[in-house]
Amino acid sequence: MKVVITGGTGMLGRRLALRILAAPELIGPDGTLQNVDRLVLFDAFPPVEPPPDDPRVEIVTGDICDRGVVAGLIDTQTDAVFHFAAVVSGGAEADFDLGYAVNLDGGRNVLEAARQTGRCPKIIFTSSLAVYGGERSVDDSTALTPQTSYGTQKAIGELMVNDFTRKGFVDGRTLRLPTIVIRPGKPNAAASGFASSILREPLQGDEVVNPVEPESRMLILSPKRAVQAFIDIHNADGAILGMNRSVMMNGLSPKVSEMLDALRSYGGDSVADRVRFEPDALIQEIVDGWAWFSDGARASALGMQPDASLEEIIETFVTEELDGKFVA
Amino acid sequence: MKVVITGGTGMLGRRLALRILAAPELIGPDGTLQNVDRLVLFDAFPPVEPPPDDPRVEIVTGDICDRGVVAGLIDTQTDAVFHFAAVVSGGAEADFDLGYAVNLDGGRNVLEAARQTGRCPKIIFTSSLAVYGGERSVDDSTALTPQTSYGTQKAIGELMVNDFTRKGFVDGRTLRLPTIVIRPGKPNAAASGFASSILREPLQGDEVVNPVEPESRMLILSPKRAVQAFIDIHNADGAILGMNRSVMMNGLSPKVSEMLDALRSYGGDSVADRVRFEPDALIQEIVDGWAWFSDGARASALGMQPDASLEEIIETFVTEELDGKFVA
Repeated sequence: MKVVITGGTGMLGRRLALRILAAPELIGPDGTLQNVDRLVLFDAFPPVEPPPDDPRVEIVTGDICDRGVVAGLIDTQTDAVFHFAAVVSGGAEADFDLGYAVNLDGGRNVLEAARQTGRCPKIIFTSSLAVYGGERSVDDSTALTPQTSYGTQKAIGELMVNDFTRKGFVDGRTLRLPTIVIRPGKPNAAASGFASSILREPLQGDEVVNPVEPESRMLILSPKRAVQAFIDIHNADGAILGMNRSVMMNGLSPKVSEMLDALRSYGGDSVADRVRFEPDALIQEIVDGWAWFSDGARASALGMQPDASLEEIIETFVTEELDGKFVA
Repeated sequence: MKVVITGGTGMLGRRLALRILAAPELIGPDGTLQNVDRLVLFDAFPPVEPPPDDPRVEIVTGDICDRGVVAGLIDTQTDAVFHFAAVVSGGAEADFDLGYAVNLDGGRNVLEAARQTGRCPKIIFTSSLAVYGGERSVDDSTALTPQTSYGTQKAIGELMVNDFTRKGFVDGRTLRLPTIVIRPGKPNAAASGFASSILREPLQGDEVVNPVEPESRMLILSPKRAVQAFIDIHNADGAILGMNRSVMMNGLSPKVSEMLDALRSYGGDSVADRVRFEPDALIQEIVDGWAWFSDGARASALGMQPDASLEEIIETFVTEELDGKFVA
């Protein structure tokens, strides 16, 4: 089985790669779990974290906006493409042209290249809570009313995935992600970045600013559960999905104060006291526009599980990213 | 005031041109009705019907998919663009690449060219009932779940109009049209073409096939009312529209049998008996997927009126297109 991951050396791409290299996780064309024989990790940038050390892995650095490059990436041997490559919300808002080029044209290049193979490969498209706007509780059938360029581009991608699938060009599946918490590494340009920072930095001994009211709510999912959800949606019976290929993933819906309480409970006062509240009206306004509750019946029906608790989210981060040791 | 109409020599474009040349109909930047000084009618094809004979009119033939052509069309003098140019539903389904090129890339070219003028011109985007799917009754906030490539491309255009407007690049307004009945001239590639043909052909002495069950319902609007709705949405107070720039236009919701009854009532048995029922399963399936009732509160609030009756629709066609004389 040959798999391509765009954004393959990024946070989710790399973790998915490690999972599907470690054991047969993906259902192949014959309906059984198969080993991945070839795994192409495509990214705009050379790897920051070390890529998987495995002879089946090929690292390709290139521009997702270049149709020819993407056409060369997805060939007649390709069984599945996980499309993570994207400019994140803050980036797409700051650079309008770059956002449309990467998120709209890049996604279209992936679909078009897959179509040209003539073998209807699986395309797993990454969407986001940002496709909604103004609703605090959402589900699979909530109208898409994005209020950012990023959300607009993701909603457009979802529409194209549905249409290319309906035409039989690809077997598309879209996963709408909650905010990923705790993202490892450095903050990125996403407006949601603070939700990871307020947990991640204190656990590593650093002070951090929480820019939003403690009563603010967010819909969150750990990287580990997100990777599992991508495997689950890849393996889902396409007939169950029907014409609308989008699945809203569920998550936890804590208040920010509950996230900080969990941090205090896990790490003690010395850790929790590293968080300083410094209101940022702009971020508050953005967060207030986000949905914070997902009633994703399709995700549940497909067996896709959110995290069990905030403690699990913190524990997973400390285990996976900090070798089990946080700075008390 | 300088106005550009893409698809400007087509059915709706030409009729809108005649209206706004005949009298001051469009509200200009100063908030008052203004004369159009320059009117550019852009189209892919040389005019079939004679274009307006007026020194203010410039006919430009070109390709909406060519970004440079569109950039030259919409300049720093342009106050408003009515964007009608499109590949219709049957055409976009038959030629996937052409549909995306004209309907998605063409629309994006218009928005981008308008953005580059730096003066936030009004962009009136033509959308369609085809953005919905599976719902029989729709309104302004119904989720967009298109089930054709045409509907997908129109939904994508709506999302881009909203985003370009939110960013302050254009003052976009989208009008979702019912099926236009009675279209003059020859049938086009739209799956909805029969809805006009079953009235138009008999009034001109020709036999015609009705391919759908008499109980089938459709949402219809005359060309005259559609043109008025485009003027209305151009003139609407943008603040009332808010962030979602799309307005679902209302129409009549007759059964096909009621349309044929109105034809009989208007033209007599000799006219009505020119319609022969010959079921077409494919067209029936498409029509059964269309919404047939619109509860468009925003259109009503903006004073946009559908036709008063089926008789008015027929009478308007005979007056405007047949010089008042049908073939009895």
